[in-house]
Amino acid sequence: MKEILPVKKVKIVEVGPRDGFQNESIIIDTNQKIKIIEKLSKTGLKYIEITAFVSPKWIPTLSDHKEVADSINRYPGVIYQALVPNIRGYIAARECNIDEVSIIISASETHNKKNINCTTDDAFKRYEQIAYQAKKDNIAFKSYISCAFGCPYEGHIDPNTVVNIAIKLLDLGAYEISIGDTIGAANPNQVKSLISKLLLKIPASKISLHMHDTRGMALVNIYNAIQLGISTFDSSFGGLGGCPYAPGASGNVATEELINMLHDIDIETSIDIKKICSISLEMQKILGRKLPSKILALYNDIL
Amino acid sequence: MKEILPVKKVKIVEVGPRDGFQNESIIIDTNQKIKIIEKLSKTGLKYIEITAFVSPKWIPTLSDHKEVADSINRYPGVIYQALVPNIRGYIAARECNIDEVSIIISASETHNKKNINCTTDDAFKRYEQIAYQAKKDNIAFKSYISCAFGCPYEGHIDPNTVVNIAIKLLDLGAYEISIGDTIGAANPNQVKSLISKLLLKIPASKISLHMHDTRGMALVNIYNAIQLGISTFDSSFGGLGGCPYAPGASGNVATEELINMLHDIDIETSIDIKKICSISLEMQKILGRKLPSKILALYNDIL
Repeated sequence: MKEILPVKKVKIVEVGPRDGFQNESIIIDTNQKIKIIEKLSKTGLKYIEITAFVSPKWIPTLSDHKEVADSINRYPGVIYQALVPNIRGYIAARECNIDEVSIIISASETHNKKNINCTTDDAFKRYEQIAYQAKKDNIAFKSYISCAFGCPYEGHIDPNTVVNIAIKLLDLGAYEISIGDTIGAANPNQVKSLISKLLLKIPASKISLHMHDTRGMALVNIYNAIQLGISTFDSSFGGLGGCPYAPGASGNVATEELINMLHDIDIETSIDIKKICSISLEMQKILGRKLPSKILALYNDIL
Repeated sequence: MKEILPVKKVKIVEVGPRDGFQNESIIIDTNQKIKIIEKLSKTGLKYIEITAFVSPKWIPTLSDHKEVADSINRYPGVIYQALVPNIRGYIAARECNIDEVSIIISASETHNKKNINCTTDDAFKRYEQIAYQAKKDNIAFKSYISCAFGCPYEGHIDPNTVVNIAIKLLDLGAYEISIGDTIGAANPNQVKSLISKLLLKIPASKISLHMHDTRGMALVNIYNAIQLGISTFDSSFGGLGGCPYAPGASGNVATEELINMLHDIDIETSIDIKKICSISLEMQKILGRKLPSKILALYNDIL
């Protein structure tokens, strides 16, 4: 029996330089960030979220966003993305010639207040400005929906809330909605249930998943999403990442663990796993700690 | 859409005290082992593999098998198992009133030679002796098939070899066959394919899975096995374990990560996750290193 999956090729968005660096307790040196992004650009990755244009007051670890964006070598075929929380961030990102921007909204009202300091409705008002300007500037934008599978403050999240927010974001002009399991709370049954609900209203090509691996279930969740036709996933080299406003949240699914599984099940990614592992191993040295990626142990001797 | 799984209750075999302790680079103090097994007995676990009756020359970390087996308090409702490599080991285990014994055979000829120092055919001859005696003594026995999804020496393993070995082991009288992914090489498509082949010849109730988490795919593999009706899984508290003859192999799937997923998808185990995490956290202190279990980070404050 040969397993037939509805997906033959997967798009991976590397979010380590944003979601990873953002949540490290130490501030990584700007030159090191630039070198890491340069190396990531040569792995076959086609989408890299390099930073967030947020106030240093809120996220000091990414206060060098302008310097990072201005200094990296841009590689042909690689789309460089950045997160923008408001129109000011958007303008700053545009000045740095960011290829695409991301906005973020939580499925949880409380998480929005804690994370982006406004209500869900007010967040949409902010994003209308960005959407209007991005359309004028011909800059594509996508959106995260965080806490889509559970919130550290509210607990259960109504799947209908996620579906409604996703529809509103697409109406606003987002080309892709990244459904975020910010605290790694999702289980495969829940993933199948939420994605099935989303697919009643939204085509699979516009949905992506952003899974944290807090409880070790990121890969089983992603596999089940693939079975439903989802083919875009965020990941983070080494499994870097988390959420400063979501207690207990650990890193994103590790890029190397994700592409290892995909290649094993005959899904193409165009990404070189050895190169990713080499960058993750280097990152371990920079941080002075082991990263969550389990598969990295098998590549220890490649540095 | 509510996911309907063919399994409502799962049997978990805790193999940490055998497969885990066996593969630690340090020899754990016998009294600590006894205390850990005692604590595991009070978590709701019903099957614990406590040691292996093997020569100290081969596995020095388990040379205290007799002392461990003789000293632990036996809790009603808990089945204490031990691995036996030959009739001498079986007799020793019987003398210690072990409830059930396990034998082990590899799907790879080369791995058998390196791991149990004989050919596959010779291994079966050894095990005929054990099977004959166990039947006479009314002691139930089960068998592992190691390297069922790949071998560190031979690479690919023919699924038909696994099916044939499983049938021979059942014919010998084994009540359960634990299909082992010794080096954590399996992917979900492969698991579905091998289990489907096995199910053509063997009922689901006689198949169990023993998955190592080397590449982070243990849970996705187990979830796919559950979808095919498999309901018995080996695991190891904290994710302890490995294989000394399988280079690069990391630990078993962590008991706490497994039961967390099972409880999340409404499958009963009767096991208390907090108690397991508390034992894993204690084990981290004993070993002086972080164990692979990711979910443990969420329970850091329970000790």
